[in-house]
Amino acid sequence: MGSTGEYESQRRVPVPPSKPFLKSLQARLKETFFPDDPFRQFKNQPTSNKFLLGLQYFVPIIEWAPRYTFNFFKADLIAGITVASLAVPQGISYASLASIPPIIGLYSSFVPPLLYAMLGSSRDLAVGTVAVASLLISSMLGKEVSPTENPKQYVQLVFTATFFAGVFQASLGILRLGFIVDFLSHATIVGFMGGAATIVCFQQLKGFLGLIHFTHETDLVSVMRSVFSQIHQWRWESAVLGCCFLFFLLLTRYFSKRKAAFFWINAMAPLTTVILGSLLVYLTHAEKHGVQVIGHLKKGLNPPSASDLAFGSPHLMAAIKTGIVIGIIGLAEGIAVGRTFAMFKNYHIDGNKEMIAFGMMNIAGSCTSCYLTAGPFSRTAVNFNAGSRSAVSNIVMAAAVMFTLLFLTPLFHYTPLVVLSSIIIAAMLALLDYEAAIHLWKIDKFDFFICLGAYLGVVLGSVEIGLIIAITVSLLRIILFVARPRTMVLGNIPNSGIYRSMDQYQIANSVPGILILQIDAPVFFTNASYLRERISRWIYEEEDRLKSAGEASLHYVILDLSAVGSIDTSGISMLEELMKNVHRKGLQLLLVNPQSEVMKKLDKSKLIDKIGQGWIFLTVGEAVSACNFMLHTCKSIHVAVDQNAEENKV
Amino acid sequence: MGSTGEYESQRRVPVPPSKPFLKSLQARLKETFFPDDPFRQFKNQPTSNKFLLGLQYFVPIIEWAPRYTFNFFKADLIAGITVASLAVPQGISYASLASIPPIIGLYSSFVPPLLYAMLGSSRDLAVGTVAVASLLISSMLGKEVSPTENPKQYVQLVFTATFFAGVFQASLGILRLGFIVDFLSHATIVGFMGGAATIVCFQQLKGFLGLIHFTHETDLVSVMRSVFSQIHQWRWESAVLGCCFLFFLLLTRYFSKRKAAFFWINAMAPLTTVILGSLLVYLTHAEKHGVQVIGHLKKGLNPPSASDLAFGSPHLMAAIKTGIVIGIIGLAEGIAVGRTFAMFKNYHIDGNKEMIAFGMMNIAGSCTSCYLTAGPFSRTAVNFNAGSRSAVSNIVMAAAVMFTLLFLTPLFHYTPLVVLSSIIIAAMLALLDYEAAIHLWKIDKFDFFICLGAYLGVVLGSVEIGLIIAITVSLLRIILFVARPRTMVLGNIPNSGIYRSMDQYQIANSVPGILILQIDAPVFFTNASYLRERISRWIYEEEDRLKSAGEASLHYVILDLSAVGSIDTSGISMLEELMKNVHRKGLQLLLVNPQSEVMKKLDKSKLIDKIGQGWIFLTVGEAVSACNFMLHTCKSIHVAVDQNAEENKV
Repeated sequence: MGSTGEYESQRRVPVPPSKPFLKSLQARLKETFFPDDPFRQFKNQPTSNKFLLGLQYFVPIIEWAPRYTFNFFKADLIAGITVASLAVPQGISYASLASIPPIIGLYSSFVPPLLYAMLGSSRDLAVGTVAVASLLISSMLGKEVSPTENPKQYVQLVFTATFFAGVFQASLGILRLGFIVDFLSHATIVGFMGGAATIVCFQQLKGFLGLIHFTHETDLVSVMRSVFSQIHQWRWESAVLGCCFLFFLLLTRYFSKRKAAFFWINAMAPLTTVILGSLLVYLTHAEKHGVQVIGHLKKGLNPPSASDLAFGSPHLMAAIKTGIVIGIIGLAEGIAVGRTFAMFKNYHIDGNKEMIAFGMMNIAGSCTSCYLTAGPFSRTAVNFNAGSRSAVSNIVMAAAVMFTLLFLTPLFHYTPLVVLSSIIIAAMLALLDYEAAIHLWKIDKFDFFICLGAYLGVVLGSVEIGLIIAITVSLLRIILFVARPRTMVLGNIPNSGIYRSMDQYQIANSVPGILILQIDAPVFFTNASYLRERISRWIYEEEDRLKSAGEASLHYVILDLSAVGSIDTSGISMLEELMKNVHRKGLQLLLVNPQSEVMKKLDKSKLIDKIGQGWIFLTVGEAVSACNFMLHTCKSIHVAVDQNAEENKV
Repeated sequence: MGSTGEYESQRRVPVPPSKPFLKSLQARLKETFFPDDPFRQFKNQPTSNKFLLGLQYFVPIIEWAPRYTFNFFKADLIAGITVASLAVPQGISYASLASIPPIIGLYSSFVPPLLYAMLGSSRDLAVGTVAVASLLISSMLGKEVSPTENPKQYVQLVFTATFFAGVFQASLGILRLGFIVDFLSHATIVGFMGGAATIVCFQQLKGFLGLIHFTHETDLVSVMRSVFSQIHQWRWESAVLGCCFLFFLLLTRYFSKRKAAFFWINAMAPLTTVILGSLLVYLTHAEKHGVQVIGHLKKGLNPPSASDLAFGSPHLMAAIKTGIVIGIIGLAEGIAVGRTFAMFKNYHIDGNKEMIAFGMMNIAGSCTSCYLTAGPFSRTAVNFNAGSRSAVSNIVMAAAVMFTLLFLTPLFHYTPLVVLSSIIIAAMLALLDYEAAIHLWKIDKFDFFICLGAYLGVVLGSVEIGLIIAITVSLLRIILFVARPRTMVLGNIPNSGIYRSMDQYQIANSVPGILILQIDAPVFFTNASYLRERISRWIYEEEDRLKSAGEASLHYVILDLSAVGSIDTSGISMLEELMKNVHRKGLQLLLVNPQSEVMKKLDKSKLIDKIGQGWIFLTVGEAVSACNFMLHTCKSIHVAVDQNAEENKV
């Protein structure tokens, strides 16, 4: 030892100093809820600055407005008008999807975008109503109150649900629980959106075939039964018109996809179909021949609706539940879309701040006759392609919608419903992201099945069932991973002191007399007994192998804990039992590179003394060297140990 | 390069060869469901041997019976009789806890132990009824059918629940789903058992105070309200008797604990109290002065009860639910107890096989007038201490109970109920494992809170609430760990090529111009966006630190993936975004030691080509050497890159 004493002590795995419980709890909570350290800029600032920074933090427009230029405005003006031309027909269409009066769809494109422009941190997001949430509203609330028999009460319920969606979104953001949205994985969202798009498309058969009675269920079986039970009510005029418009919309999409500069063809197409369709009906009086039209739309801006919030309603629980579901769906899409476009332009989006903005926008919306709004992908893509520079494009869009509300609503009188259906179908087909599903299949089969489960759950069951299936399966996957971690046998990479999995590295060689195992997951109660059994199996399998190969017997078991990030009391018990088992077989257990949390718990449970601090090494290489040293110089001791073990067995 | 070419290629991280999907699925499923390789012994055996081995596998008695000796029998005889002396009073007491006739408690100690002796693989487990399951039966089924008003229907429901418990247990075993039991962690079980013991004790106030009417609720508040609302019905005679017996039982336990050889004092004490209590009542005619007694017990063995199974009952769902809950509680205790004692004697217990044995025993029990049986800790400890050598002690116990049933039941006529209450309380106080709770607090605060949650949930809510709280919190902990993995900055340990967390190793030094990060958990959708944000924060914090310290700027980010055991598509996207972010800042990303699954997905997603195979290293040391080489020889290139980055920012 002597001269290498200091060297040795440097190389030892240290036990971390014990921290007071409250302090470590505080650090842990901070890391859980404030991982991005949002108040970093507030540090070391005078109070007045702190106030200004705080205001800028919550109302980002204060921060960027002074830097806004006329050039930016020109770009935003064009983008805003382009988006508005899409927003007006989409607003009306999605309102019909939610079974509410079409005018509410227009109202919803006026107030919320204004609020988002002030509070939101995305420069590209175009706010508006979303198809999936609209469908969810009609399927979840339609069960409670019939939108045709009791339209006033139904609309009140929709506002109430929107209010709770906003409250839920804002609370998630304020409580820094934004990470809940991360639990909807990409695979879940692809499957879920695809399923929702599919059932929305089938729902449009109502508009296409000019049917008046239609099922409230959303699953494929009910919809098809409803459609085919009314074959005699089908209106061919309506269907032909719809197919023509759909063909036109898909054709424009095809061209705009082939050349990015043609994006405006795609953006303008819905408005064009609305104008063409309305003209056609007006000129041919088709409304008298079975083509249903929108009819009268009230002129004027959003009426206040705070007094319509039905907190005393017997359906309050349904409204709250619907609010939570649509709130989280809206957030998941909105934040994913915001982040995607922020990536392109290299700026950062704070998820929790966005949630507060979304929440405020929906709370305010529910008091001004708007229903749920979020950041739909299609509208945001148009905004981005039209060259928007900031949230001012949302203000421009809102102004254009205001103009429509004030002066242009009579023009929609003759717009046929079938045009709205074709606009919805065209938008939905874009959500069927089969390429993403293929990508999932290629990279990760499990993710593909999650996606498929969500899709089938939505199409064959209901939107909620699909969501529940996908989230459960996703979480099960994590739990299963933690319940069945991999254990690997390590071998030596030739001409080096490196030890790696012999499965992965064909060139790695095993070390005679030593079994090196690695656990590649945290050790928790869910996997403790599995690991105990699996490691025992590795040991006896290795003993069998050595015996049948006639090689030297096993003397050491090295456990590499590098990848064990955490351990609980069950894990500690497991290690203790493992140590006893190993000792009982006359072998020696060595631990390698326990991380600080593992070291701390080994120390607190006194297991470190039972194993012996001298048997804990910094690297596998050092542990192997120690074993080899003892194997070659202390053979006599080993013979004695072996005999002892034999006696124990008898 | 030249001469080191071969060396270099040896050192590269290989992409594992792609396996067909079905093959890898099969391997995965085998590892999940057959981790202990139970059919190992069947390999390379002729068919006749396979049949015998299979029979021995499912009916272990065939395997060990030929080796059974007379010496073993002597030991088992003593142990069996000792356990029987505990089993008879316990059986009667726990039956009263389940609100069923006391005789069923005796029946339950006759058939199930015989079956377990044939099918079970534990040599020490003593089969019998368990207090917690008894309480659960009366609280869950008592809500459906009143045991006092409708005793026949209630007993039928109890048999039906027992049947379903057996079916559930056996199916878990057959389907190799035994690991579900692992989801009840040690901490959960300590808290849950403690809570159940507490409420069982408070329930005994009914017997102690001689009350006739009592609440069906199990929570503390209801029980105390029920007790104190009937102050005038309290019977002091009963209470005095109960306190004396309880004192006696606790005293004997105290002595037997101080000296292991006195275990039989503890084992015999309950029977002694029963005899003393019965004699006392018989001599003083106390049954006429407010001391309730058991009364008439039918002579004779178990009557068949298969026709009593109420599959057509309107309460069938409640019976199934109760069956599942008590089934899993029974398994959790039974298997934990079996494993604990198997550890002492160094033999192995196959959890799935045990489940089949437990299931068969309860299915057979439900058809022979028995209710749920498992392997209670107290009885097994007595069996072990009495020197049992094999499951024959269960047969001896069953024979002793049979003798009791045939000839001795009239003797229990005068046994006062308060004696049963004191036996139950004495048994329950042993389950209040406060030392285990302290141990949890010391080692793992989180586990302690899980334990406390289970305890309070059971005591203040109900047994089911406690169980749900504990399991949810346990799983949340795992999900939270996976949602918020730790990222660590690594530094160089002086005089070595080893890199370790700078937090844990005070002596580790950072490397100029290079940031080395380690992720210590699998990368899944739940943590992908967290990791992206956290790693970005590490990078800008390091840049800020270097700037304020006036040191050389950052050029390389090394990501050590050694501890990333698994990754999904969200994780791959995260790595890709991270790479883009890092490149945009003019830095270079290096990956170190990705495991085979990560390598496979990097390859399939083509991310490996975007990052560049040359930037993936086997060890952190090699990656740092490569960076240093380039930092010192290619400075001019870096200056150019820096300028480029500056231009990009403008």
